[in-house]
Order: sequence, then structure tokens, then C-alpha cells
Amino acid sequence: MVVLQLSGTAPVNLQAKFSILELAHGSRKHLTTLSSFSLPSLFISNSQQPRHPISSFPPVNQSVAAIVFGDGSESRLYPLTKRRSEGAIPIGAKYRIVDAVISNCINSNINKIYALTQYNSTSLNSHLSRAYTGLGLGKDGFVEVIAAYQSLEDQGWFQGTADAIRRCLWVLEEYQVSEFLVLPGHHLYRMDYQKLVDAHRRSQADITIAALTSTRDQDPGFGTLKVNSLNEVAEFHVKSEREPMIDPSVQSAQASNDNSYRKLSSMGIYLVNRDVMTKLLNEYFPQANEFGTEVIPGAISTGMKVQAYAFDGYWEDMRSIAAFYQANMDCIKGLNMGYNFYDKDAPLYTTPRYLPPTTITGAVITDSVVGDGCILNRCKIKGTVVGMRTTIGEKAIIEDSVIMGSDIYQKDYIQKSGKEGMAIPIGIGEDTHIKKAIIDKNARIGRNVMIINKDNVQESNREANGYIISGGIVVVLESAVIPDGSIL
Amino acid sequence: MVVLQLSGTAPVNLQAKFSILELAHGSRKHLTTLSSFSLPSLFISNSQQPRHPISSFPPVNQSVAAIVFGDGSESRLYPLTKRRSEGAIPIGAKYRIVDAVISNCINSNINKIYALTQYNSTSLNSHLSRAYTGLGLGKDGFVEVIAAYQSLEDQGWFQGTADAIRRCLWVLEEYQVSEFLVLPGHHLYRMDYQKLVDAHRRSQADITIAALTSTRDQDPGFGTLKVNSLNEVAEFHVKSEREPMIDPSVQSAQASNDNSYRKLSSMGIYLVNRDVMTKLLNEYFPQANEFGTEVIPGAISTGMKVQAYAFDGYWEDMRSIAAFYQANMDCIKGLNMGYNFYDKDAPLYTTPRYLPPTTITGAVITDSVVGDGCILNRCKIKGTVVGMRTTIGEKAIIEDSVIMGSDIYQKDYIQKSGKEGMAIPIGIGEDTHIKKAIIDKNARIGRNVMIINKDNVQESNREANGYIISGGIVVVLESAVIPDGSIL
Amino acid sequence: MVVLQLSGTAPVNLQAKFSILELAHGSRKHLTTLSSFSLPSLFISNSQQPRHPISSFPPVNQSVAAIVFGDGSESRLYPLTKRRSEGAIPIGAKYRIVDAVISNCINSNINKIYALTQYNSTSLNSHLSRAYTGLGLGKDGFVEVIAAYQSLEDQGWFQGTADAIRRCLWVLEEYQVSEFLVLPGHHLYRMDYQKLVDAHRRSQADITIAALTSTRDQDPGFGTLKVNSLNEVAEFHVKSEREPMIDPSVQSAQASNDNSYRKLSSMGIYLVNRDVMTKLLNEYFPQANEFGTEVIPGAISTGMKVQAYAFDGYWEDMRSIAAFYQANMDCIKGLNMGYNFYDKDAPLYTTPRYLPPTTITGAVITDSVVGDGCILNRCKIKGTVVGMRTTIGEKAIIEDSVIMGSDIYQKDYIQKSGKEGMAIPIGIGEDTHIKKAIIDKNARIGRNVMIINKDNVQESNREANGYIISGGIVVVLESAVIPDGSIL
Amino acid sequence: MVVLQLSGTAPVNLQAKFSILELAHGSRKHLTTLSSFSLPSLFISNSQQPRHPISSFPPVNQSVAAIVFGDGSESRLYPLTKRRSEGAIPIGAKYRIVDAVISNCINSNINKIYALTQYNSTSLNSHLSRAYTGLGLGKDGFVEVIAAYQSLEDQGWFQGTADAIRRCLWVLEEYQVSEFLVLPGHHLYRMDYQKLVDAHRRSQADITIAALTSTRDQDPGFGTLKVNSLNEVAEFHVKSEREPMIDPSVQSAQASNDNSYRKLSSMGIYLVNRDVMTKLLNEYFPQANEFGTEVIPGAISTGMKVQAYAFDGYWEDMRSIAAFYQANMDCIKGLNMGYNFYDKDAPLYTTPRYLPPTTITGAVITDSVVGDGCILNRCKIKGTVVGMRTTIGEKAIIEDSVIMGSDIYQKDYIQKSGKEGMAIPIGIGEDTHIKKAIIDKNARIGRNVMIINKDNVQESNREANGYIISGGIVVVLESAVIPDGSIL
Repeated sequence: MVVLQLSGTAPVNLQAKFSILELAHGSRKHLTTLSSFSLPSLFISNSQQPRHPISSFPPVNQSVAAIVFGDGSESRLYPLTKRRSEGAIPIGAKYRIVDAVISNCINSNINKIYALTQYNSTSLNSHLSRAYTGLGLGKDGFVEVIAAYQSLEDQGWFQGTADAIRRCLWVLEEYQVSEFLVLPGHHLYRMDYQKLVDAHRRSQADITIAALTSTRDQDPGFGTLKVNSLNEVAEFHVKSEREPMIDPSVQSAQASNDNSYRKLSSMGIYLVNRDVMTKLLNEYFPQANEFGTEVIPGAISTGMKVQAYAFDGYWEDMRSIAAFYQANMDCIKGLNMGYNFYDKDAPLYTTPRYLPPTTITGAVITDSVVGDGCILNRCKIKGTVVGMRTTIGEKAIIEDSVIMGSDIYQKDYIQKSGKEGMAIPIGIGEDTHIKKAIIDKNARIGRNVMIINKDNVQESNREANGYIISGGIVVVLESAVIPDGSIL
Repeated sequence: MVVLQLSGTAPVNLQAKFSILELAHGSRKHLTTLSSFSLPSLFISNSQQPRHPISSFPPVNQSVAAIVFGDGSESRLYPLTKRRSEGAIPIGAKYRIVDAVISNCINSNINKIYALTQYNSTSLNSHLSRAYTGLGLGKDGFVEVIAAYQSLEDQGWFQGTADAIRRCLWVLEEYQVSEFLVLPGHHLYRMDYQKLVDAHRRSQADITIAALTSTRDQDPGFGTLKVNSLNEVAEFHVKSEREPMIDPSVQSAQASNDNSYRKLSSMGIYLVNRDVMTKLLNEYFPQANEFGTEVIPGAISTGMKVQAYAFDGYWEDMRSIAAFYQANMDCIKGLNMGYNFYDKDAPLYTTPRYLPPTTITGAVITDSVVGDGCILNRCKIKGTVVGMRTTIGEKAIIEDSVIMGSDIYQKDYIQKSGKEGMAIPIGIGEDTHIKKAIIDKNARIGRNVMIINKDNVQESNREANGYIISGGIVVVLESAVIPDGSIL
Repeated sequence: MVVLQLSGTAPVNLQAKFSILELAHGSRKHLTTLSSFSLPSLFISNSQQPRHPISSFPPVNQSVAAIVFGDGSESRLYPLTKRRSEGAIPIGAKYRIVDAVISNCINSNINKIYALTQYNSTSLNSHLSRAYTGLGLGKDGFVEVIAAYQSLEDQGWFQGTADAIRRCLWVLEEYQVSEFLVLPGHHLYRMDYQKLVDAHRRSQADITIAALTSTRDQDPGFGTLKVNSLNEVAEFHVKSEREPMIDPSVQSAQASNDNSYRKLSSMGIYLVNRDVMTKLLNEYFPQANEFGTEVIPGAISTGMKVQAYAFDGYWEDMRSIAAFYQANMDCIKGLNMGYNFYDKDAPLYTTPRYLPPTTITGAVITDSVVGDGCILNRCKIKGTVVGMRTTIGEKAIIEDSVIMGSDIYQKDYIQKSGKEGMAIPIGIGEDTHIKKAIIDKNARIGRNVMIINKDNVQESNREANGYIISGGIVVVLESAVIPDGSIL
Repeated sequence: MVVLQLSGTAPVNLQAKFSILELAHGSRKHLTTLSSFSLPSLFISNSQQPRHPISSFPPVNQSVAAIVFGDGSESRLYPLTKRRSEGAIPIGAKYRIVDAVISNCINSNINKIYALTQYNSTSLNSHLSRAYTGLGLGKDGFVEVIAAYQSLEDQGWFQGTADAIRRCLWVLEEYQVSEFLVLPGHHLYRMDYQKLVDAHRRSQADITIAALTSTRDQDPGFGTLKVNSLNEVAEFHVKSEREPMIDPSVQSAQASNDNSYRKLSSMGIYLVNRDVMTKLLNEYFPQANEFGTEVIPGAISTGMKVQAYAFDGYWEDMRSIAAFYQANMDCIKGLNMGYNFYDKDAPLYTTPRYLPPTTITGAVITDSVVGDGCILNRCKIKGTVVGMRTTIGEKAIIEDSVIMGSDIYQKDYIQKSGKEGMAIPIGIGEDTHIKKAIIDKNARIGRNVMIINKDNVQESNREANGYIISGGIVVVLESAVIPDGSIL
């Protein structure tokens, strides 16, 4: 299966990759030589000529289109991705992960947004169309989902992010934008992309890569940049998902021994000039499947002007269940650290819902975030994200957990089942104790249940029983049923 | 000032009223005589002939239009109505009063809704257009506000509910509906109007009045009905707002001494056939200003077929600050009594908002309802409606109160004012104690404030100080500032 | 009746006017003297100090709110204004006049639009809410109708444009805009208001007035400006609607004898700084009712910095039936002169409709504009605006006319009426000849009708017969019926 | 490539098919025997027990979900399907083919609409989301596109219509509907599906098939029905696309020799009870890929109660370019035959657009349909569908053709190209003659071009030259350029 993640070296066309790596290992001098016969000279000169002054650019809402990849990786956040793509995972009591990136776009006045998707795309499509079509995106604004499709010319799935963009270029070129902003849809951060666009235009770059100032383990395949004092990218390491990369994949002779260079971690965010995008995908690297690991290194190797845009705010790519859990815990701390849901000037958008306010009959709540429409009976909640419509029974204790909530209320389950006590309703039963767990949507946790990972298991797959344990965190599956008295 | 309340005998055209009362006091025999010369015989016979079978009616979404009066009375809920009409008062942590009636319409598949308004209409107009235009009201569905307007023929304000409908008939007749449903917009109840429509059509009535089975003090001017076993209205008392009515205003000889009749209280809800509406307003009672106190008694007096539709659910008309307060307290009890916000099959609609979930750092919350986007620090909340975006400071205690919340966040007030402690932010300050109070929107309650009505004052107007006391309940005005250390 | 027209000296509070005129006639020296005791010196200096550089302003969609007056004058376009305000008159086959101004706002990225209205406001409210709520107006964008309303403090209608703005200031100040753009809603022109805003900010003006470079008869009360080479307004003539003004109302000693000044005609478009608006309406001229004839001259008289913004494009204020007719005829010429409906980059918005394409069985059509959903049988159409849903019968001839079209189709009139030939359907009958006429919406023109003004009458009121003649143009009233064989 | 067409025997799982045919050839007695061991007896009896009375069903907008297949066949309408699915082909001057079916749903109060798609799905997705999200579809109403997607369990494309429904069942079951209405999305007809639903419920059928009363060549694979006087389906022929079927595929012994049966042609429209759908796809025929050719015959073979719903209105499945052309020609005749765009009570919906009215400088137009925003210079148009934004040059003659129009205006081509006469603008040039042709969107037809198929070619592929000829009709490709003076 090919996942539209802006990363991953796995599904690469080998031939294409080889030639790119060949380019990548070459020195800049080599590249110049190469480009002198293989690339139109027009292009090289183009990128060095002064362009129109920045003031002549139209506003970003008319000149930039965003390309969001909603898929992420299918496997690392399993089982949260069993029925959904990574971008569609619920977070922060009422949002989906992809809302962070889409809201960044809207708050940056970028209102032409294409979401490319193929893995478990239904959940994402449904969310995006419900959340963002009612919202005023302004003149010519839209969030348009482009699902993988068959055509007469090409009957296969998207083979990677570069392949996906290439096959959709005829759609993406509908509006006369000047740049494309390529965005992974499963990361959690706030960024004003307008500043990125401004920096890109001022530097007259062909491509600008947003990058973290701190080197760290980020999404595999996004690479590590070495940049000079002008933020020009001189080197680009790519670490494979499977094996750590030892040799720098792209390195100029000058850069390798020079202390004036600093290292940044790519965020997988690329601002690419429209004509450069077309040339890269159709002329220079028509076989490349992946954008981050093939096209971007290739572009650097051809001598294009590639800039870095440094970012030092909160950013989380949730590479594992543990990282996803931690991101939620950070959110709770709210105003000070972690991802902040409360920015008045840059609100986080999502599906508008008509939920009643939360009713609390007698809860003691500490350091928690509570969504709409919950029914909290006499319970104790500490350090927990309580998702919308969560029902919590009497004397339940929830600690350090992520409760995703539910899509429906279920009050009359006993009447329906006909037998009292037989059916377990959606929500968390009386006297149940949950600690350090993730409870996915619509789960039915019975009474007197203990979800506390008492044996401190680190990894375990009990999918048949409705849960798995990953990194010491119990994850109860969507719609799973945990019978009364269970101890997990 | 003329308020578009479906009640009130005050602003009545005297001449019109006289003739109506004359009709009203007559016996049915008298009426027949009267109608024999003053009314087209066609009409009387019309209402007694069998009409089309009920199955031939189109669905209510094509055949019924609702006329909602948003204004209520300006004075009885003062100061909550200082800047808004009664229908626009916030209730239930995130709603406006009028949402209850509009949602009833939508949930009853009535999607042609005209809201007639003139008193402080801006707040209501703004709410209705923001809340209900994004919402899918279906084919040909709309919530359209008709504010009082001047025209060449008539340059005055609406002189009452009947006058308002009369002057807007040319708009109301835009769609070929068969009945108009006249609704007060400031009452709190759930009703499936489809059942009312079905009963109306089955009984082939000219007018059907929804009425409470329990006689009680309701909105003045709505009247008391005496109905026979077929639910036909035989008598109609109207009690003036100012003086209690002694004599029955409409009474048939038969009805007055008959035990087979029962008494109902009108809810001010009238389903009126389209042609009957036109005739009543333009032909029979062209001078009548009020619908409930003039037109309806007049219709009965002319021998029209007027039916009652009995209703025994929760209903509250909030005739006073105390009643409004009580309705809120009842809401808290939620699932069992009072108005229920949690009906999955008949959701309560309102403006969709993009608020973050509520953040709680350490609250003990009992029997309360909490809206979206609150920031609750270490505080105690008991028996309280906490409106959206409410911020509550450390160690504050809120009991048995209605906090309406705020329209904006205000976090940076100290920085902005430049002097620490000078400005009082929106919300409720640290160490403040509030008991049995209504805190209107955007109020700024300082630290160490006591709003406890310690002298147990029943009525007091301290508007200059930012509050009034009504029925023993302290009402802090919208945007009022209560300085640190105040004791109310 | 008071009409919310940005003009008109008629309904002025005399006391206020007197003092303003006193100011107005004074020289600038006098003004300085005056302002030295009556105005806060802070203010004068404020307007002369350098402000923030223009680049620091947020984009106009966050910093400017438009205030549109939809009413115009009730009388001069009668009978087209019988049931509607001037802004709601149909134009250009599918638009309403106000669409031109609202679309200018949207195309200029101004998306906070308040429409103030009271005369025949229903038609305008209905149009604006249907046309512009579905449209993506972007983040925080809206077209909000504020109809005249009663409140406890003020129970009267709006007394003029200044009074209307004053009473609504508490609503208008909802968003933190820096300028208000005051716009008459009944003019036909295209303007990029962003350029006006830029000029205003660059010149650090308190008020900027858009003005025509050619002096001409425009809306009465809008005044004539004398400006110096820096586009500063030195003089402001106001011509009353009733009597021509002889003396300049505002004139500096310097300006009157100076050839370096040029004359411009005010368009009634004012960009006013937010704080200046508040001061003018509440502090300096709290009694002023009219914006154009009282507040603006007053502002000049107090020494505020008032700039002119010259405009030389197409502009039409349609002061008479003849002018409205001519504007329609100019539209037909389309691409070259008159108002251009075809600007791809600045589309004209209106209510989205689901009309079928126009069906033509055999028409010869010359120099005409044809709306959607028409049914044109074998007829001849020349120099005519054919509004949406117009049905034209066989052998009809339509020349130099404005057919506004209809709101519904009516195909089955004969069946319904039961008698063939009795009823006249909406549209234009067979063999009918129409020349130089305006046919309002839903009119029913029979067969063999001649609407040719054969006696060349200039003015005539035949309202009882369904038409009037104004300026030699026959105007058939909305929904009027013109029997078969009539000769008008 | 697998196309989601409700037909086609090609991509069938052979094993599944075999067993179905085996069932199909058996007599009912055989079936009973078969079902006695292979099917739960519960089921058979279920379908014969009386169910809830029809009056107890909720309204269709709460109880029926539509499943629309947008793809049709990729090949038979080539080249119109080169970049789009069959449902996205423009028709009737401003619509797409799929609008007919979606509008049928909306006008039948079915507002839960899932569109399943995978072939060239982008065009359809984009159209559906733009056209139907702004539209008020009412409470819980939506048009949701489900594109083929990969999941952990299944990484392939949809293998046919049955496979597509099976894989999406978890989404389709989101709402508690009682029936699914399966619809091909590429047919042109008007049907009130409520009547179909009523008939289905009254007859207590498991499945109801809409069928044409006239036997004719319809979409291959839809089959021919033999029904008894109670409209029960006794026999079901399926004709393969490739080879005509000789033997009846399903036939009861009784039916074959009985004159009391009549023959109907299936329209590929199936109303299926929710539980029946689940059983058929997951239990009985888990390997079946196609709904029409496998599942429906299978259901009949198992003895389920399958009813026919006879339809005798206009219906066209456009099996070829010639049929598509003919459907357009029929539309022109408008009110009398062909598909009628003018039904006031059942409007045809599509994307709302902000196009100016059509401007005509001097055209003679006969028997034609003209879309919005055209610019028709002095030309002759006869028997032609003129799509929106079509520009036609002076002295051009267009006869018996379908001009699809364009997505943009292009007025300034000469200035942009820099060389007069070099570039050919979108639209139809001066002096050009077009007869019996289909001109796809955005084509650029030069001056003095003759598209008249002068040699009367029947089939020809000149794709490199921008056109093909099919059935004697010239089809100019989307965005094709036909140079000045060309003769086709």
C-alpha cells in the first residue's frame, strides 16, 4: 500500500532514486556540469535573475494554493488509523488533527486548499467537507479533496506524494497562483504561512523549506538541512524510515567542513514556485514518486535556489502512540506550553456542531480539557482530555488519559436490549478507573473496569479483546466493548 | 412604544376593540344573526363543509409558514432587555431564548420562518441571520427577519401583532402555504408542531390554539379557553395586563353552565388558515392591532371553527426576572425536569461557533451546566449555568447563579492598561463569591467581590452601579464593571 | 417620512443645521478660533501628527467596515419604489441596484458590510440575506442588515443618515476596524475601494470623499468640492434638493479666488476614521441628522483634514426614471460604455438562482441583454434588457425597453382560470408591440397590446390602469395587468 | 480498469457468477430447496410476514439514503470522458449529467446522498461539492462523495458496484435509514422517488426495481424483467455488454409460458431494504462484484420478494455519442418532449454561478437553448444548445449542435499573445460554420472554420487534430484548438 505521506523512502521507484542519489552525492561543481547539458539554461538563469519586487505580488489568498497530504503513515499510529487516515484522528476534545493545518491556512489567508488523499480517505473527506464548506472561505476559497482516481492514462493508485501532485497538476493549475505550499496534514503546530511566503519572495527562492531550529527526530524522510547565514540550503540529509542514513545525501564540498553552517530539521513544508513545480515533476524527475526524499534533493542537486525558513514554535509530528499521547497531555497545559487551542486571532476551525452544553452533576476536575455535550456524573477527572459527548458514570476516576468521546448519545440502551445489564452503553461506566489510556470514539467501557495497565506491559496486541498496548499506553479501539469488571 | 408581543391589551385601537367586545359578549345565537348580515355566508359554510382529506395535504415544509414574534415585552425582563429583545436573551450557556421556538420549527419540518420584530431588533436580527443561514433549512427553507419598515402608505411602526401581520401579508403570501403558525418567540418549550397541524387539519378548523392543560398565570393577554369534549373552543377569557378580567370576554350560553367543558390556558400559539388570516385582518377586523386579544376573540365571535390543541409538556413564558432565573435553574436539572437541551432527535440549534473546549485547572463542579470555551481555574461551582467563554478566577465560589459568559476573551488586560490591578478583565475575579445572581454578558467582576444580596433586598435599581435587584435576584448588567472588593 | 438617503436637506434638525451653516460660512481663520474653544485641542493636533506608516495597517478585510444606505429616495423613481427601496430595484436582467455597491465591497476585499435601512426595507433585507449569506465572504465576513428599530432610549425612526449611524454605532463598533466607509447603496459604478483606502491612509486624512472629476448634477445634497493640488478639500458646496444653492456653504478665503483649485462633484462616498466618526456624531454634532449635508461640512469647518479621492469612471445615480432608463440602455452597449457586467476579475454578485437556460424558438435579437430562464417565442427584440424568466409571445416586438422579468413561471393560467382567454399570464402576449417602456416585475401584458406612448405624453399618472408615464417613458407597474388590445 | 457503472458483466468473479447463474436457472421450487439449506429460513419468512404499516415509516428524508454511481462507462462516451466521469459531462447549457439524478433525489426529499466514484473522480467530486454544499439540503442532509480508497484490509480499487457498496457499508450505515436507493448517476430522467418508496413499502418488498414499460436497448447489464400482475418480478434476463444473452438468466417455470406476465426493462434503479443489503453483500454473495448482474439475480434466485416499479416517462441512458447528441437535441424541444429543464416544482440544481446575462448584438436564433453569460455577435443559431460563456463571432452559423461553453472568458488574447491573429481565443470565430457537432468545453475554434463533416464520415479518430467523429457527429475535444480555415 502506498501512503500519501510527505516522507517515507519505502515506495520509491528505484531507477528514479538512483539517478537522484547520483545527483545528490555530486558536488555543486558537478551539478553545474550536469545541468549544463541536462537542464535548460534558461531555468538556471531564471532563478538568479531579479524578479518582480515583492510588493507587486497579489495577496496570498489570490496567489498561493495549499496542497495538504492527509494520510500520514498508516502503521505508526495504529490502531487509531484502523478506519481513518492520520489527519482524521480526533484530538483536543473536539478537533481532528488535520484541523490544525487547515486552520493555519485559513488564518494565513490561504483559502485555496487541495487535500490529496487515498488511504482510508473516507473519514478525512467526510470531515473536511462537513467542516469547511459551511465556513466562509472568501471569494474563490475552497477546501477541495482530491482522492486518488483512475483514468484512462493511469489506472494505479498514487505512488507517493510526488506522483500524486504530478497526476493532479491539471487540477491544481486551475487558478493562476504563483506558488504551491506543500503541507503534511498530520502535524500539530501553529504557523503564519504568510511570513513564510514573504521570506520566500524576498529571497527570490525557487523553493523554501520550513525547518525546525532544533535538530530532532522528526518524520522520517523529511531530512536535515545545513544552511548558511543567508538561510540558503547547502546540504540535505535524508534519513530513511528503515535504516538510519549515514552519509549525507546532498552535500556541497564547501558545506561539509564549514562552521558557518547550521543544521535545521525539515518540517516537510515546501513552498514551491508554480513553474518550478511543473519543471521538477514533469521535466527533471518525471519518475520520482516522493516529494521529500526525491524531488527536493533533486532540486537542490540541480542548483536551484532552495531557502530554509526557520521555525522555533511548538511542533509535533506524532510519530508514535506515545508521541500522540504526549501531544494531548501537552495540550492540557493549555496556555503555556503545548499546542494552544485558545488563540483568539487564529482560531482553530472544525465541524460546527449543535451540541448542548456539558452537564456536570458533581465532578472534581483537575488540569483537564472538556468538550461540548458531555454528561459527567459524580466522578473524578484529572489530567485528561474529555472528548465531546463523553458520558462518565458515578464514582468513575479518569487520570492522565485521552477520552475521544462519541458520535452519538446512547441513553436508552437497556430498553433496546431488553435485558437489564446486558448491553454496555457508549461511555464510561460506574466505578471504572482509567489511567494513562487512550479511549477511541464510541467505545463502551463497562462498570468496575480497571484500565490501568497493572502489569506495566509496554507492547501488546489484544485487538480481539478491544485494545492494544503501545509504549505502555492502553489504547481501547473505536467502538470496542470492554465488559463490566474487566481489568486491562 | 409598541412591542410586538403576542399579548398585551394596552396598545389597542379603542374603536376596534369596542366592536370586538360587542361581538365577544354576544351568544352564539347572536353571532349567527350577526354573521348573517355582516359576514359572507360563503365563509361560514366553507368552514363546515368537508375539506380535502388530510392525506391530500402536502408535507408541512411546503404548506405551513411560521410567523415568529421576537420581541416579547421590553419591561418585565429589564435590564436583560436593555440592548436586546426578549428573544435574544442568552440562556442555557450557549443559546438565545428564540432558539427554542426556531428549533421547534426546524424539528417539526417547518422551514419557512418569518420573524417579525421592531423593538431592539438588531440583536435578534443579527443572531437569527448568523445562526440560521448557514444551517441547511432544506429546499425553499429560510429564517427571514422582517423588521418594522416605513412605506409610502404607512409611515408608522407596527401597532401590534395583528397590525404587523397585516402589513406584512404581501410578503407572507409569497409561498402558497395553506396555514400560518403564529408563535411568540420568547417562550421555552419543546413542541412538535406537526402534531398540532395534523390535529388542525383533521378537525377542519379555521383556527387552532395551542393551550396548556393546567390553568395558570401565563403571558397576559393570551387568555383562557373553555373547550368541549371535541376540543372546540366555546369561550375565551382575556385577562388584561393591567386589570384582571372579571367577565368572560367570549362565552356561549351553553358553555357557561356546563360541566362538560374544561379550561385551558392559551399559549399564544395560533395555527390559522391562510384565507382565514386574510379575511380576519383585512375584512372583519381591519382596525384590530393585537392578535391575541382582538383578532382571536373576534374570530370566535363570528362563529368560526376554533379548536384547542392541548399541551402538557414543560412550558415557561418567563414573565419576570424571577421566572427567567427559575427556568435556568430548571434547565440544570436537565434530563428529568425543566427544559431539556439533550434531545438527540430534536436538537436545539444556535449560532455555530469555533470555540475551544473548556479548560479546567481544578474545579469542583456540582449540578451545573458548562458552555464551550470556558477557563475555570481552581474554583467551586454549584447549581450554576456557566455561559460560553466564562473565565473564573482562583478560589471563586459560584452558587445558584446564571453566568451568561462573554463574547470575547480578554487575557491581556494588564499589559494593555499598563497598570497592574487597575483594569478589571471580563469574567469573575479571584476570591469572588456569587450567589443567586444573574451576571449578564461581558461583565467584569473584580476580585474579592461578594454578590450575595446580603441584606436580602427584594427590589432595587442600582443601574449606575452596574446592577439591579429584582425578586431578590441580583442582576449585573451587560458589560458592567464591579470593582474589586465590592459587596452587593 | 424619513428616507435613509445620503443626501437631502429636507429632514434636518433646524437648530443643528443653523450652527453648522454658521460654521460653514466662516473662513478657516474663523474656524480655528471657533475650534480653539469648542473642540478639544487634542483632536486638531491629532489629525496633523504623523500616524503609523501605511504598511502597518492590517488588510482592509480586517480594518474597514462598510456602511451602506439602501434606501435612496422614495419619490424620484416612483413607481419602481412603490414596494421596494431604491437599492432593491431590478437592473441588468438579473441584478438589484444595490448589488453594484455590495459587489464593489466584496471585490475590494471589504467583507464587513452593514446595510442600514428603514424605507420599504423588507425587499432589500430579503434580497441581501438571500444573495450574500451563501456567498463565501471569508473569515468574519458578513452583510448584516440593520433595520430601524425602537429602543427604550429612542422610540422614533432614524431621522437621517447621521442619526442612523449614531444610533447604530454600538453595533458598528463590534469589530476593531480603523475606518468606516459610508456608501449610498443605489448608485451604479465600479470602484476599487482599496485604492481609496490607500490614498486616505497615505494622506493621513480624517475623512476622504470620493468625487467625480466632472462637475455635474448628482444626487442632491452630495455637494461640490473645491480641492487644491494636494487633493485637500478647501470648499464644500451643498445644493439643496429644493432650491439651488447660490452661496458656497464652506469656503476658505484663499480658495475662492484661486485658480489652482479644481472643482469635483461629491459621490456621497465617505471614508471616515473610526474615532473621527465617534467624535463627529457624539461630541461635535450630536444633533445633526444628515451625514452629507451636515456632518461633512461641519467636519470641514472644524479644520479636520478632509481629502478628495478623484474618480473618473462610469457613475450613475439615477435621479429620475429617465436616468434609470438611460443607465439600462447604456448597460446594453456592454463592453464599451455604461456599466460593464462582464468584469471577470470583479464579478457582480447577486442571489444565486436555479433557473433553466433561456429557450428561444425563433427570435431575432439585436443589441440586447437576456437573463436566465426566459422563454422567447418567435419575436423581435431590439435594444432591450430582457429580465430573467421573461416569457414573450409569438410575433411580439420589443424595442428600446427594460423588461424586468418575473419571479415565477405561469404556464397553466388558462386551465386554472377555467375560461380560455380570460386570464392574462405573466409575460408579454402575442402580437404585442412595446417601445421605450419599463415593464416592472410580474406584469401581465395581454395580446395585441401597444405600449408605444403614441401621443408622446411626457408625464401622466394612470396608476389605476397599471402604468404611469415619466419623462416620456411608459412604466408598467409591478404585477399590473394590461388587457388584450390595450393601447398605451 | 474497473468502472463503477451499475452494469457490465465484464469484471465478474467467475466463481460467484457461476453459482448465481445456477441459482438463476432453477425453478422457484429448486430455490426453496436451495434456500432450505443455504439460507436462514428466518429470512424467507421475514419477507413474507406483514411488516409495520406504511404510515409508521418516517418521512423519506429520514429513512432513505441514496447511493449514486457517478462513473458510468469510460469508453462509450469517449472523448467526452477523457478527463471526466460520465456523470460530469456538461449538458443542457449549464448542467452536468449527474445533476439530473441528484436533483431527483432533492426534489423527492431524499437528502442523504452518497456518491461512489473512482474513475476520473476529480471532476465529479469537485462539481458535487461546489454545487450541493451551499444548497440547503435540510436537517442532516448532504451529498457526500466517497472515492475509492485503500485500507489496511483492502488495498485494491473498487471491483464493481457491489464491491463498492460492500466496502462502504460501514459509512452508509451511519444513519438509521430503512432503505438504500441505488442509482446510476449518468441517466437523464425525472422521477419522484417518493412514489417508488411508497410502492415498495406498500408491497412489503425486499427489493424494488424501477423499470421502463417499453422493452428497449438500455444500459447493458441492467436486464429485462418479467413481472406478474402484482408487479412481482418472476424473471430477470441479463444481457452482457459483449454478447447478447440468449437464455433467460432467471426464470420461473410458471413465468416462461404465461401470457399474464409482461416484460419491463430495468433502469438500474434498486430500492433495497437496509438489512437485505447487508445480507446480500456480506452473507449470500460476498464475492459478487456487480450489483445489477450478480446481486440482483442472486436475490431473485433466493426467493426474496422483488417488485418492479413501472416508469413510462422520458429516460435516456446515453449509451453512445449519438445518444448523448440526441438527448441534447430532445432537450431543445423543451416543453413537450425530451428532458424538461423547466419544471417549477422540481427544479434542476447545479453549481450556482455569478455570470452576467447573455449579451446579443444581433443574432437570429431558432429552436435553441442559450446559457448564461454568452456573448453572441451577429450570428445565426439554429437547433443548438449554447453552453454558458460561449462567445460566437460575427457571421458564424451554428446548426444542430451542442456547444458546451467555457469556464473562463478570454477577451484579451491578442494583446497577450503579442501577435495579432496568432492566438485563437476560446469560443467560435468569425465566419465559422458548425453543423451537427459537439464542441467540448474551452475549445478554440478559429475563423472561417467549417465543422460540417463534409465527407459524411461515420467514425474517425483525429484526436491529434483535436477531434473525433462518432456516429457521424464531429466531437471537438475539450480545450482543443481548431486553426483558422480548417475544414472538418
